[in-house]
Amino acid sequence: MRIDRARLPGFAAAGIDRCDQVRSDPEALAAAFADPQARRMRLDGLDPMTDGPELVREPIPAGARAADHVLLGKEADGSPLFVELRSGIPHGGAFAPRVWEAATELDARELALYGGARSLVDWHARHGFCAVCGGATMPAKGGWSRRCGGCGAEHFPRVDPVVIMLAEYQGRVLVGRQTRFPPRRYSALAGFIEPGETIEGAVARELYEEAGIEVTDIGYVMSQPWPFPSSLMIACTAQARDDRLTLDLTELEDAFWVDAAGVRAALDGEEDAPFKAPPTMAVARHLLLHWVERQG
Amino acid sequence: MRIDRARLPGFAAAGIDRCDQVRSDPEALAAAFADPQARRMRLDGLDPMTDGPELVREPIPAGARAADHVLLGKEADGSPLFVELRSGIPHGGAFAPRVWEAATELDARELALYGGARSLVDWHARHGFCAVCGGATMPAKGGWSRRCGGCGAEHFPRVDPVVIMLAEYQGRVLVGRQTRFPPRRYSALAGFIEPGETIEGAVARELYEEAGIEVTDIGYVMSQPWPFPSSLMIACTAQARDDRLTLDLTELEDAFWVDAAGVRAALDGEEDAPFKAPPTMAVARHLLLHWVERQG
Repeated sequence: MRIDRARLPGFAAAGIDRCDQVRSDPEALAAAFADPQARRMRLDGLDPMTDGPELVREPIPAGARAADHVLLGKEADGSPLFVELRSGIPHGGAFAPRVWEAATELDARELALYGGARSLVDWHARHGFCAVCGGATMPAKGGWSRRCGGCGAEHFPRVDPVVIMLAEYQGRVLVGRQTRFPPRRYSALAGFIEPGETIEGAVARELYEEAGIEVTDIGYVMSQPWPFPSSLMIACTAQARDDRLTLDLTELEDAFWVDAAGVRAALDGEEDAPFKAPPTMAVARHLLLHWVERQG
Repeated sequence: MRIDRARLPGFAAAGIDRCDQVRSDPEALAAAFADPQARRMRLDGLDPMTDGPELVREPIPAGARAADHVLLGKEADGSPLFVELRSGIPHGGAFAPRVWEAATELDARELALYGGARSLVDWHARHGFCAVCGGATMPAKGGWSRRCGGCGAEHFPRVDPVVIMLAEYQGRVLVGRQTRFPPRRYSALAGFIEPGETIEGAVARELYEEAGIEVTDIGYVMSQPWPFPSSLMIACTAQARDDRLTLDLTELEDAFWVDAAGVRAALDGEEDAPFKAPPTMAVARHLLLHWVERQG
Protein backbone atom coordinates (compact mmCIF):
# COMPACT_ATOMS: atom_id res chain seq x y z
CA MET A 1 0.00 0.00 0.00
CA ARG A 2 1.40 3.35 -1.03
CA ILE A 3 0.89 6.40 1.16
CA ASP A 4 -0.05 9.70 -0.45
CA ARG A 5 2.92 11.80 0.52
CA ALA A 6 0.94 15.04 0.25
CA ARG A 7 -1.11 13.89 3.28
CA LEU A 8 1.84 13.50 5.65
CA PRO A 9 4.86 15.61 6.52
CA GLY A 10 8.15 14.19 5.23
CA PHE A 11 9.89 11.37 7.17
CA ALA A 12 6.73 10.68 9.21
CA ALA A 13 5.28 7.58 7.51
CA ALA A 14 5.04 4.46 9.67
CA GLY A 15 8.01 2.38 8.75
CA ILE A 16 9.96 -0.79 9.02
CA ASP A 17 9.79 -3.35 11.86
CA ARG A 18 12.70 -2.12 13.96
CA CYS A 19 13.05 -5.55 15.69
CA ASP A 20 14.68 -4.13 18.80
CA GLN A 21 15.06 -7.59 20.39
CA VAL A 22 17.56 -8.52 17.66
CA ARG A 23 19.79 -5.54 18.48
CA SER A 24 20.68 -6.81 21.96
CA ASP A 25 21.01 -10.46 20.91
CA PRO A 26 24.48 -11.02 19.37
CA GLU A 27 23.53 -14.37 17.79
CA ALA A 28 20.33 -13.06 16.22
CA LEU A 29 22.19 -9.97 15.00
CA ALA A 30 24.95 -12.06 13.39
CA ALA A 31 22.31 -14.27 11.75
CA ALA A 32 20.49 -11.21 10.36
CA PHE A 33 23.75 -9.82 8.93
CA ALA A 34 24.63 -13.20 7.37
CA ASP A 35 21.11 -13.70 5.95
CA PRO A 36 21.42 -14.07 2.14
CA GLN A 37 18.37 -11.77 1.84
CA ALA A 38 20.05 -9.02 3.93
CA ARG A 39 20.56 -5.69 2.16
CA ARG A 40 22.04 -2.36 3.04
CA MET A 41 20.80 1.11 2.09
CA ARG A 42 23.27 2.93 -0.17
CA LEU A 43 24.03 6.52 0.76
CA ASP A 44 26.13 9.18 -0.95
CA GLY A 45 27.82 10.59 2.16
CA LEU A 46 24.66 11.32 4.13
CA ASP A 47 22.54 11.90 1.04
CA PRO A 48 19.97 9.44 -0.31
CA MET A 49 20.44 7.41 -3.51
CA THR A 50 17.14 6.81 -5.26
CA ASP A 51 15.72 4.64 -8.02
CA GLY A 52 12.36 6.26 -8.81
CA PRO A 53 10.21 6.09 -5.64
CA GLU A 54 12.61 3.69 -3.89
CA LEU A 55 15.91 3.96 -2.08
CA VAL A 56 18.81 2.03 -3.57
CA ARG A 57 19.64 -1.18 -1.65
CA GLU A 58 22.58 -3.49 -2.27
CA PRO A 59 23.57 -6.94 -1.01
CA ILE A 60 25.96 -6.97 1.97
CA PRO A 61 29.44 -7.10 0.35
CA ALA A 62 31.76 -9.99 1.18
CA GLY A 63 34.09 -9.01 4.00
CA ALA A 64 31.76 -6.36 5.48
CA ARG A 65 31.58 -6.37 9.29
CA ALA A 66 28.28 -6.27 11.21
CA ALA A 67 29.93 -3.92 13.74
CA ASP A 68 30.26 -1.24 11.04
CA HIS A 69 26.50 -1.23 10.37
CA VAL A 70 23.23 -0.19 11.94
CA LEU A 71 20.41 -2.71 11.81
CA LEU A 72 17.49 -0.60 10.58
CA GLY A 73 15.06 -3.51 10.91
CA LYS A 74 13.28 -6.12 8.84
CA GLU A 75 11.40 -5.16 5.70
CA ALA A 76 7.89 -6.34 4.81
CA ASP A 77 9.31 -9.48 3.11
CA GLY A 78 11.42 -10.31 6.18
CA SER A 79 14.78 -9.21 4.72
CA PRO A 80 17.08 -7.54 7.24
CA LEU A 81 18.06 -4.01 6.23
CA PHE A 82 21.28 -2.32 7.37
CA VAL A 83 23.11 0.91 6.70
CA GLU A 84 26.89 1.28 6.79
CA LEU A 85 28.58 3.61 9.27
CA ARG A 86 31.10 6.03 7.79
CA SER A 87 33.47 8.59 9.18
CA GLY A 88 34.45 11.87 7.54
CA ILE A 89 30.99 12.63 6.18
CA PRO A 90 29.43 16.13 6.21
CA HIS A 91 27.56 17.20 9.34
CA GLY A 92 23.92 16.15 9.20
CA GLY A 93 22.75 19.56 10.34
CA ALA A 94 24.05 21.13 7.13
CA PHE A 95 21.81 22.24 4.25
CA ALA A 96 20.98 19.15 2.17
CA PRO A 97 19.55 20.07 -1.26
CA ARG A 98 19.63 16.44 -2.44
CA VAL A 99 17.23 15.45 0.37
CA TRP A 100 14.72 18.15 -0.59
CA GLU A 101 14.83 16.86 -4.15
CA ALA A 102 14.53 13.20 -3.10
CA ALA A 103 11.56 14.08 -0.86
CA THR A 104 9.53 14.80 -4.01
CA GLU A 105 10.56 11.49 -5.63
CA LEU A 106 10.47 8.92 -2.85
CA ASP A 107 7.51 6.96 -1.57
CA ALA A 108 6.53 8.26 1.91
CA ARG A 109 7.72 5.07 3.67
CA GLU A 110 11.05 5.14 1.85
CA LEU A 111 11.58 8.78 2.81
CA ALA A 112 10.85 7.94 6.48
CA LEU A 113 13.28 5.00 6.36
CA TYR A 114 15.95 7.26 4.89
CA GLY A 115 15.38 9.95 7.54
CA GLY A 116 16.01 7.58 10.44
CA ALA A 117 19.10 6.13 8.73
CA ARG A 118 20.49 9.60 8.06
CA SER A 119 20.11 10.63 11.72
CA LEU A 120 21.81 7.46 12.95
CA VAL A 121 24.74 7.52 10.50
CA ASP A 122 25.35 11.18 11.32
CA TRP A 123 25.15 10.56 15.07
CA HIS A 124 27.76 7.80 14.88
CA ALA A 125 30.06 9.95 12.73
CA ARG A 126 30.03 12.70 15.37
CA HIS A 127 30.24 10.48 18.47
CA GLY A 128 33.52 8.60 18.16
CA PHE A 129 34.53 9.76 21.64
CA CYS A 130 33.05 9.48 25.11
CA ALA A 131 31.61 12.72 26.54
CA VAL A 132 32.26 11.41 30.07
CA CYS A 133 35.99 10.55 29.81
CA GLY A 134 37.20 11.42 26.30
CA GLY A 135 37.99 7.77 25.44
CA ALA A 136 37.20 6.13 22.10
CA THR A 137 33.70 4.66 21.73
CA MET A 138 32.57 1.74 19.56
CA PRO A 139 29.15 0.94 18.09
CA ALA A 140 27.09 -1.54 20.12
CA LYS A 141 23.62 -3.15 20.02
CA GLY A 142 23.33 -3.30 16.26
CA GLY A 143 24.32 0.36 15.96
CA TRP A 144 21.70 1.64 18.45
CA SER A 145 24.28 2.70 21.02
CA ARG A 146 28.02 3.31 21.46
CA ARG A 147 30.10 2.02 24.34
CA CYS A 148 33.25 3.62 25.74
CA GLY A 149 36.29 1.35 25.82
CA GLY A 150 37.71 3.45 28.67
CA CYS A 151 35.02 4.08 31.31
CA GLY A 152 32.32 1.75 29.94
CA ALA A 153 29.68 4.50 29.61
CA GLU A 154 26.93 3.73 27.11
CA HIS A 155 25.70 6.51 24.84
CA PHE A 156 22.43 6.54 22.90
CA PRO A 157 21.52 8.38 19.69
CA ARG A 158 20.07 11.82 20.32
CA VAL A 159 16.53 12.85 19.48
CA ASP A 160 16.09 16.58 20.07
CA PRO A 161 12.46 17.63 20.64
CA VAL A 162 11.46 20.91 18.99
CA VAL A 163 8.15 22.77 19.29
CA ILE A 164 6.73 24.35 16.12
CA MET A 165 3.53 26.30 16.52
CA LEU A 166 0.85 28.55 15.11
CA ALA A 167 -0.42 31.22 17.45
CA GLU A 168 -3.99 32.26 16.57
CA TYR A 169 -5.79 35.54 17.31
CA GLN A 170 -9.33 36.28 16.10
CA GLY A 171 -9.21 34.22 12.92
CA ARG A 172 -5.59 34.96 11.99
CA VAL A 173 -2.38 33.03 12.61
CA LEU A 174 1.19 34.23 13.12
CA VAL A 175 3.81 33.34 10.50
CA GLY A 176 7.44 34.44 10.57
CA ARG A 177 10.62 34.20 8.52
CA GLN A 178 14.33 33.86 9.19
CA THR A 179 16.93 35.56 7.01
CA ARG A 180 18.12 32.17 5.70
CA PHE A 181 14.65 31.35 4.21
CA PRO A 182 14.03 31.57 0.45
CA PRO A 183 12.44 34.88 -0.67
CA ARG A 184 8.84 35.45 0.56
CA ARG A 185 8.83 32.12 2.51
CA TYR A 186 7.12 32.36 5.92
CA SER A 187 6.54 29.49 8.31
CA ALA A 188 5.41 28.58 11.84
CA LEU A 189 7.70 29.71 14.68
CA ALA A 190 9.83 27.00 16.29
CA GLY A 191 12.46 26.28 18.93
CA PHE A 192 14.15 23.52 20.90
CA ILE A 193 12.55 22.23 24.11
CA GLU A 194 14.97 22.80 26.99
CA PRO A 195 15.70 20.66 30.05
CA GLY A 196 12.99 21.21 32.67
CA GLU A 197 10.29 22.26 30.19
CA THR A 198 6.98 20.75 29.13
CA ILE A 199 5.90 20.91 25.49
CA GLU A 200 3.38 23.58 26.49
CA GLY A 201 5.99 25.53 28.44
CA ALA A 202 8.33 25.58 25.44
CA VAL A 203 5.53 26.76 23.11
CA ALA A 204 4.67 29.63 25.45
CA ARG A 205 8.33 30.59 26.03
CA GLU A 206 9.29 30.57 22.34
CA LEU A 207 6.28 32.66 21.27
CA TYR A 208 7.02 35.15 24.03
CA GLU A 209 10.76 35.31 23.31
CA GLU A 210 10.49 35.55 19.53
CA ALA A 211 7.28 37.55 19.07
CA GLY A 212 6.42 39.02 22.48
CA ILE A 213 2.99 37.38 22.64
CA GLU A 214 1.40 35.48 25.53
CA VAL A 215 -0.67 32.40 24.75
CA THR A 216 -3.19 30.02 26.36
CA ASP A 217 -4.99 26.83 25.23
CA ILE A 218 -1.96 25.14 23.69
CA GLY A 219 -3.01 22.06 21.70
CA TYR A 220 -0.94 19.26 20.19
CA VAL A 221 -1.54 18.61 16.48
CA MET A 222 1.07 16.18 15.08
CA SER A 223 4.73 15.20 15.19
CA GLN A 224 7.48 14.58 12.66
CA PRO A 225 11.06 13.30 12.78
CA TRP A 226 13.35 15.85 11.08
CA PRO A 227 16.78 14.44 10.25
CA PHE A 228 18.86 17.67 10.19
CA PRO A 229 20.43 16.18 12.23
CA SER A 230 17.94 14.52 14.56
CA SER A 231 14.96 16.59 15.70
CA LEU A 232 11.48 15.53 16.70
CA MET A 233 9.15 18.29 15.54
CA ILE A 234 6.11 18.65 17.84
CA ALA A 235 3.49 20.78 16.09
CA CYS A 236 0.99 22.75 18.21
CA THR A 237 -1.56 25.54 18.07
CA ALA A 238 -2.10 28.22 20.75
CA GLN A 239 -4.42 31.17 21.40
CA ALA A 240 -2.76 34.59 21.69
CA ARG A 241 -4.07 37.07 24.27
CA ASP A 242 -3.64 39.97 21.81
CA ASP A 243 -2.01 40.68 18.46
CA ARG A 244 0.71 43.17 19.42
CA LEU A 245 4.10 41.85 18.27
CA THR A 246 7.55 42.55 19.72
CA LEU A 247 9.92 40.67 17.43
CA ASP A 248 13.32 39.34 18.50
CA LEU A 249 15.21 40.36 15.37
CA THR A 250 18.12 38.03 16.18
CA GLU A 251 15.70 35.11 15.68
CA LEU A 252 13.16 36.44 13.16
CA GLU A 253 13.56 38.77 10.21
CA ASP A 254 9.82 39.43 10.09
CA ALA A 255 6.46 38.05 11.26
CA PHE A 256 2.82 38.97 10.62
CA TRP A 257 -0.75 37.80 11.25
CA VAL A 258 -2.51 36.25 8.25
CA ASP A 259 -6.16 35.27 7.81
CA ALA A 260 -7.59 32.02 6.41
CA ALA A 261 -7.94 33.45 2.88
CA GLY A 262 -4.26 34.43 2.91
CA VAL A 263 -3.20 30.99 4.21
CA ARG A 264 -5.31 29.27 1.53
CA ALA A 265 -3.78 31.42 -1.20
CA ALA A 266 -0.29 30.59 0.08
CA LEU A 267 -1.02 26.85 0.26
CA ASP A 268 -2.45 26.98 -3.28
CA GLY A 269 0.73 28.71 -4.46
CA GLU A 270 -1.16 31.73 -5.81
CA GLU A 271 1.09 34.47 -7.15
CA ASP A 272 -0.54 37.25 -5.14
CA ALA A 273 -0.61 35.23 -1.89
CA PRO A 274 0.68 37.22 1.11
CA PHE A 275 3.56 34.75 1.53
CA LYS A 276 5.12 31.60 0.07
CA ALA A 277 4.10 28.51 2.10
CA PRO A 278 6.58 25.87 3.31
CA PRO A 279 6.95 22.72 1.14
CA THR A 280 5.02 19.46 1.67
CA MET A 281 8.03 17.94 3.43
CA ALA A 282 7.78 20.49 6.27
CA VAL A 283 5.39 19.92 9.17
CA ALA A 284 4.71 23.68 9.17
CA ARG A 285 2.74 23.27 5.92
CA HIS A 286 0.62 20.53 7.49
CA LEU A 287 0.03 22.70 10.54
CA LEU A 288 -1.23 25.50 8.27
CA LEU A 289 -3.45 22.95 6.45
CA HIS A 290 -4.78 21.63 9.77
CA TRP A 291 -5.67 25.15 10.89
CA VAL A 292 -7.22 26.35 7.63
CA GLU A 293 -9.40 23.22 7.29
CA ARG A 294 -10.99 24.18 10.63
CA GLN A 295 -11.84 27.76 9.54
CA GLY A 296 -15.24 28.84 8.16
CA MET B 1 -0.01 32.24 43.52
CA ARG B 2 0.59 28.68 44.66
CA ILE B 3 -0.17 25.75 42.36
CA ASP B 4 -1.95 22.71 43.80
CA ARG B 5 0.70 20.07 43.22
CA ALA B 6 -1.87 17.27 43.14
CA ARG B 7 -3.22 18.74 39.87
CA LEU B 8 0.06 18.55 37.96
CA PRO B 9 2.71 15.89 37.47
CA GLY B 10 6.01 16.69 39.21
CA PHE B 11 8.49 19.10 37.57
CA ALA B 12 5.82 20.34 35.11
CA ALA B 13 4.76 23.69 36.65
CA ALA B 14 5.40 26.76 34.52
CA GLY B 15 8.57 28.26 35.86
CA ILE B 16 11.09 31.00 35.89
CA ASP B 17 11.79 33.53 33.10
CA ARG B 18 14.69 31.75 31.40
CA CYS B 19 15.92 35.03 29.78
CA ASP B 20 17.67 33.29 26.91
CA GLN B 21 18.89 36.58 25.42
CA VAL B 22 21.12 37.07 28.48
CA ARG B 23 22.86 33.72 27.94
CA SER B 24 24.45 34.75 24.64
CA ASP B 25 25.31 38.30 25.77
CA PRO B 26 28.58 38.22 27.76
CA GLU B 27 28.05 41.70 29.24
CA ALA B 28 24.47 41.03 30.35
CA LEU B 29 25.55 37.67 31.77
CA ALA B 30 28.40 39.23 33.78
CA ALA B 31 26.01 41.90 35.06
CA ALA B 32 23.48 39.27 36.16
CA PHE B 33 26.20 37.32 38.00
CA ALA B 34 27.47 40.50 39.70
CA ASP B 35 23.94 41.65 40.64
CA PRO B 36 23.77 42.00 44.47
CA GLN B 37 20.35 40.32 44.29
CA ALA B 38 21.76 37.29 42.44
CA ARG B 39 21.37 33.94 44.21
CA ARG B 40 22.33 30.38 43.51
CA MET B 41 20.35 27.23 44.22
CA ARG B 42 22.09 25.01 46.78
CA LEU B 43 22.28 21.33 45.91
CA ASP B 44 23.59 18.33 47.87
CA GLY B 45 25.39 16.58 45.01
CA LEU B 46 22.45 16.41 42.61
CA ASP B 47 19.85 16.30 45.37
CA PRO B 48 17.64 19.23 46.40
CA MET B 49 18.02 21.17 49.65
CA THR B 50 14.68 22.41 50.94
CA ASP B 51 13.33 24.84 53.49
CA GLY B 52 9.67 23.89 53.79
CA PRO B 53 8.02 24.41 50.36
CA GLU B 54 11.05 26.31 49.00
CA LEU B 55 14.46 25.39 47.64
CA VAL B 56 17.44 26.76 49.54
CA ARG B 57 19.11 29.72 47.78
CA GLU B 58 22.32 31.46 48.84
CA PRO B 59 24.10 34.65 47.77
CA ILE B 60 26.85 34.18 45.16
CA PRO B 61 30.03 33.69 47.24
CA ALA B 62 32.94 36.09 46.78
CA GLY B 63 35.42 34.65 44.29
CA ALA B 64 32.86 32.46 42.50
CA ARG B 65 33.22 32.45 38.69
CA ALA B 66 30.26 32.94 36.34
CA ALA B 67 31.78 30.30 34.03
CA ASP B 68 31.21 27.64 36.70
CA HIS B 69 27.47 28.33 36.85
CA VAL B 70 24.31 27.91 34.82
CA LEU B 71 22.00 30.92 34.59
CA LEU B 72 18.60 29.42 35.38
CA GLY B 73 16.83 32.72 34.76
CA LYS B 74 15.30 35.63 36.59
CA GLU B 75 12.86 35.08 39.43
CA ALA B 76 9.54 36.91 39.85
CA ASP B 77 11.26 39.76 41.77
CA GLY B 78 13.91 40.14 39.04
CA SER B 79 16.77 38.44 40.93
CA PRO B 80 19.05 36.36 38.73
CA LEU B 81 19.20 32.71 39.82
CA PHE B 82 22.18 30.43 39.11
CA VAL B 83 23.25 26.90 39.99
CA GLU B 84 26.87 25.85 40.41
CA LEU B 85 28.43 23.21 38.15
CA ARG B 86 30.21 20.38 39.94
CA SER B 87 32.23 17.40 38.85
CA GLY B 88 32.34 14.02 40.57
CA ILE B 89 28.64 13.95 41.43
CA PRO B 90 26.47 10.81 41.15
CA HIS B 91 24.90 10.06 37.77
CA GLY B 92 21.52 11.78 37.43
CA GLY B 93 19.91 8.62 36.08
CA ALA B 94 20.43 6.88 39.44
CA PHE B 95 17.67 6.25 41.97
CA ALA B 96 17.14 9.45 43.97
CA PRO B 97 15.10 8.87 47.15
CA ARG B 98 15.69 12.44 48.36
CA VAL B 99 13.93 13.81 45.27
CA TRP B 100 10.85 11.64 45.86
CA GLU B 101 10.72 12.96 49.40
CA ALA B 102 11.26 16.60 48.36
CA ALA B 103 8.50 16.25 45.74
CA THR B 104 5.96 15.97 48.56
CA GLU B 105 7.38 19.05 50.34
CA LEU B 106 8.14 21.54 47.59
CA ASP B 107 5.80 24.01 45.95
CA ALA B 108 5.08 22.86 42.37
CA ARG B 109 7.07 25.74 40.82
CA GLU B 110 10.05 25.09 43.08
CA LEU B 111 10.03 21.40 42.14
CA ALA B 112 9.98 22.31 38.43
CA LEU B 113 12.85 24.75 38.93
CA TYR B 114 14.85 22.05 40.71
CA GLY B 115 14.16 19.46 37.98
CA GLY B 116 15.60 21.65 35.22
CA ALA B 117 18.65 22.52 37.35
CA ARG B 118 19.28 18.85 38.17
CA SER B 119 19.21 17.86 34.47
CA LEU B 120 21.62 20.65 33.54
CA VAL B 121 24.12 20.08 36.36
CA ASP B 122 24.15 16.35 35.59
CA TRP B 123 24.58 16.94 31.85
CA HIS B 124 27.61 19.18 32.43
CA ALA B 125 29.14 16.65 34.85
CA ARG B 126 28.97 13.92 32.19
CA HIS B 127 30.01 16.03 29.18
CA GLY B 128 33.51 17.28 29.97
CA PHE B 129 34.75 15.90 26.64
CA CYS B 130 33.85 16.40 23.01
CA ALA B 131 32.05 13.48 21.36
CA VAL B 132 33.41 14.59 17.96
CA CYS B 133 37.17 14.74 18.75
CA GLY B 134 37.69 13.71 22.40
CA GLY B 135 39.02 17.15 23.39
CA ALA B 136 38.10 18.95 26.61
CA THR B 137 34.92 21.07 26.50
CA MET B 138 34.08 24.17 28.54
CA PRO B 139 30.68 25.60 29.53
CA ALA B 140 29.44 28.41 27.27
CA LYS B 141 26.33 30.64 26.90
CA GLY B 142 25.57 30.89 30.59
CA GLY B 143 25.80 27.11 30.99
CA TRP B 144 23.36 26.33 28.16
CA SER B 145 26.02 24.77 25.94
CA ARG B 146 29.60 23.46 26.03
CA ARG B 147 32.26 24.29 23.46
CA CYS B 148 35.22 22.11 22.49
CA GLY B 149 38.62 23.77 22.88
CA GLY B 150 40.00 21.40 20.22
CA CYS B 151 37.64 21.25 17.22
CA GLY B 152 35.27 24.05 18.24
CA ALA B 153 32.14 21.86 18.16
CA GLU B 154 29.26 23.17 20.25
CA HIS B 155 27.22 20.71 22.30
CA PHE B 156 23.77 21.31 23.78
CA PRO B 157 22.09 19.71 26.82
CA ARG B 158 20.13 16.59 25.95
CA VAL B 159 16.37 16.26 26.26
CA ASP B 160 15.32 12.66 25.58
CA PRO B 161 11.68 12.30 24.50
CA VAL B 162 9.88 9.29 25.96
CA VAL B 163 6.36 8.06 25.18
CA ILE B 164 4.24 6.81 28.10
CA MET B 165 0.82 5.49 27.25
CA LEU B 166 -2.40 3.80 28.24
CA ALA B 167 -3.82 1.38 25.72
CA GLU B 168 -7.60 1.02 26.07
CA TYR B 169 -9.85 -1.87 25.04
CA GLN B 170 -13.60 -1.92 25.75
CA GLY B 171 -13.55 0.11 28.96
CA ARG B 172 -10.31 -1.27 30.35
CA VAL B 173 -6.72 0.03 30.21
CA LEU B 174 -3.41 -1.82 30.18
CA VAL B 175 -1.05 -1.39 33.16
CA GLY B 176 2.28 -3.16 33.58
CA ARG B 177 5.13 -3.50 36.04
CA GLN B 178 8.90 -3.84 35.90
CA THR B 179 10.82 -5.97 38.40
CA ARG B 180 12.42 -2.83 39.90
CA PHE B 181 9.00 -1.37 40.90
CA PRO B 182 7.81 -1.44 44.55
CA PRO B 183 5.49 -4.38 45.39
CA ARG B 184 2.06 -4.27 43.66
CA ARG B 185 2.93 -1.03 41.77
CA TYR B 186 1.71 -1.00 38.16
CA SER B 187 2.01 1.90 35.74
CA ALA B 188 1.58 2.95 32.13
CA LEU B 189 3.99 1.40 29.61
CA ALA B 190 6.78 3.64 28.34
CA GLY B 191 9.83 3.81 26.08
CA PHE B 192 12.27 6.20 24.39
CA ILE B 193 11.40 7.71 21.02
CA GLU B 194 14.03 6.66 18.49
CA PRO B 195 15.57 8.60 15.59
CA GLY B 196 13.20 8.51 12.61
CA GLU B 197 10.04 8.03 14.68
CA THR B 198 6.95 10.14 15.28
CA ILE B 199 5.36 10.22 18.76
CA GLU B 200 2.55 8.07 17.37
CA GLY B 201 5.00 5.63 15.78
CA ALA B 202 6.85 5.19 19.07
CA VAL B 203 3.58 4.58 20.99
CA ALA B 204 2.53 1.89 18.50
CA ARG B 205 5.99 0.27 18.44
CA GLU B 206 6.43 0.16 22.23
CA LEU B 207 2.97 -1.33 22.83
CA TYR B 208 3.61 -3.95 20.17
CA GLU B 209 7.12 -4.79 21.41
CA GLU B 210 6.28 -4.91 25.11
CA ALA B 211 2.72 -6.28 25.09
CA GLY B 212 2.08 -7.62 21.58
CA ILE B 213 -0.91 -5.36 20.96
CA GLU B 214 -1.72 -3.26 17.90
CA VAL B 215 -3.26 0.17 18.42
CA THR B 216 -5.05 2.95 16.52
CA ASP B 217 -6.36 6.42 17.44
CA ILE B 218 -3.31 7.56 19.39
CA GLY B 219 -4.02 10.81 21.25
CA TYR B 220 -1.72 13.19 23.08
CA VAL B 221 -2.70 13.99 26.69
CA MET B 222 0.10 15.91 28.44
CA SER B 223 3.86 16.19 28.86
CA GLN B 224 6.31 16.33 31.77
CA PRO B 225 10.04 16.91 32.15
CA TRP B 226 11.55 14.01 34.11
CA PRO B 227 15.06 14.77 35.43
CA PHE B 228 16.46 11.21 35.71
CA PRO B 229 18.54 12.33 33.96
CA SER B 230 16.76 14.41 31.31
CA SER B 231 13.63 12.91 29.76
CA LEU B 232 10.58 14.59 28.29
CA MET B 233 7.64 12.33 29.08
CA ILE B 234 4.93 12.50 26.39
CA ALA B 235 1.74 10.93 27.73
CA CYS B 236 -0.76 9.43 25.27
CA THR B 237 -3.76 7.15 25.01
CA ALA B 238 -4.43 4.60 22.26
CA GLN B 239 -7.14 2.12 21.26
CA ALA B 240 -6.12 -1.55 21.14
CA ARG B 241 -7.50 -3.78 18.37
CA ASP B 242 -7.97 -6.67 20.83
CA ASP B 243 -6.98 -7.63 24.36
CA ARG B 244 -4.65 -10.59 23.76
CA LEU B 245 -1.27 -9.90 25.36
CA THR B 246 2.15 -11.25 24.41
CA LEU B 247 4.50 -9.81 27.02
CA ASP B 248 8.19 -9.16 26.46
CA LEU B 249 9.41 -10.47 29.81
CA THR B 250 12.79 -8.74 29.45
CA GLU B 251 10.90 -5.42 29.65
CA LEU B 252 7.83 -6.21 31.77
CA GLU B 253 7.37 -8.55 34.71
CA ASP B 254 3.59 -8.49 34.31
CA ALA B 255 0.75 -6.53 32.70
CA PHE B 256 -3.05 -6.75 32.83
CA TRP B 257 -6.22 -4.95 31.72
CA VAL B 258 -8.05 -3.05 34.46
CA ASP B 259 -11.49 -1.40 34.40
CA ALA B 260 -12.47 2.07 35.66
CA ALA B 261 -13.56 0.78 39.09
CA GLY B 262 -10.15 -0.85 39.55
CA VAL B 263 -8.30 2.28 38.45
CA ARG B 264 -10.42 4.41 40.83
CA ALA B 265 -9.69 2.05 43.72
CA ALA B 266 -5.97 2.20 42.95
CA LEU B 267 -5.96 6.02 42.71
CA ASP B 268 -7.87 6.19 46.02
CA GLY B 269 -5.26 3.93 47.62
CA GLU B 270 -7.84 1.32 48.65
CA GLU B 271 -6.35 -1.78 50.24
CA ASP B 272 -8.19 -4.22 48.00
CA ALA B 273 -7.43 -2.26 44.79
CA PRO B 274 -6.14 -4.50 41.99
CA PHE B 275 -2.81 -2.62 42.00
CA LYS B 276 -0.92 0.21 43.68
CA ALA B 277 -1.04 3.41 41.58
CA PRO B 278 2.03 5.53 40.75
CA PRO B 279 2.67 8.58 42.98
CA THR B 280 1.48 12.14 42.25
CA MET B 281 4.93 13.05 40.95
CA ALA B 282 4.61 10.54 38.06
CA VAL B 283 2.80 11.51 34.87
CA ALA B 284 1.43 7.94 34.73
CA ARG B 285 -0.85 8.76 37.68
CA HIS B 286 -2.19 11.83 35.85
CA LEU B 287 -2.74 9.76 32.72
CA LEU B 288 -4.81 7.26 34.77
CA LEU B 289 -6.74 10.20 36.29
CA HIS B 290 -7.32 11.71 32.85
CA TRP B 291 -8.70 8.40 31.57
CA VAL B 292 -10.88 7.54 34.55
CA GLU B 293 -12.46 11.03 34.64
CA ARG B 294 -13.72 10.35 31.10
CA GLN B 295 -15.36 7.01 32.00
CA GLY B 296 -19.08 6.62 32.89
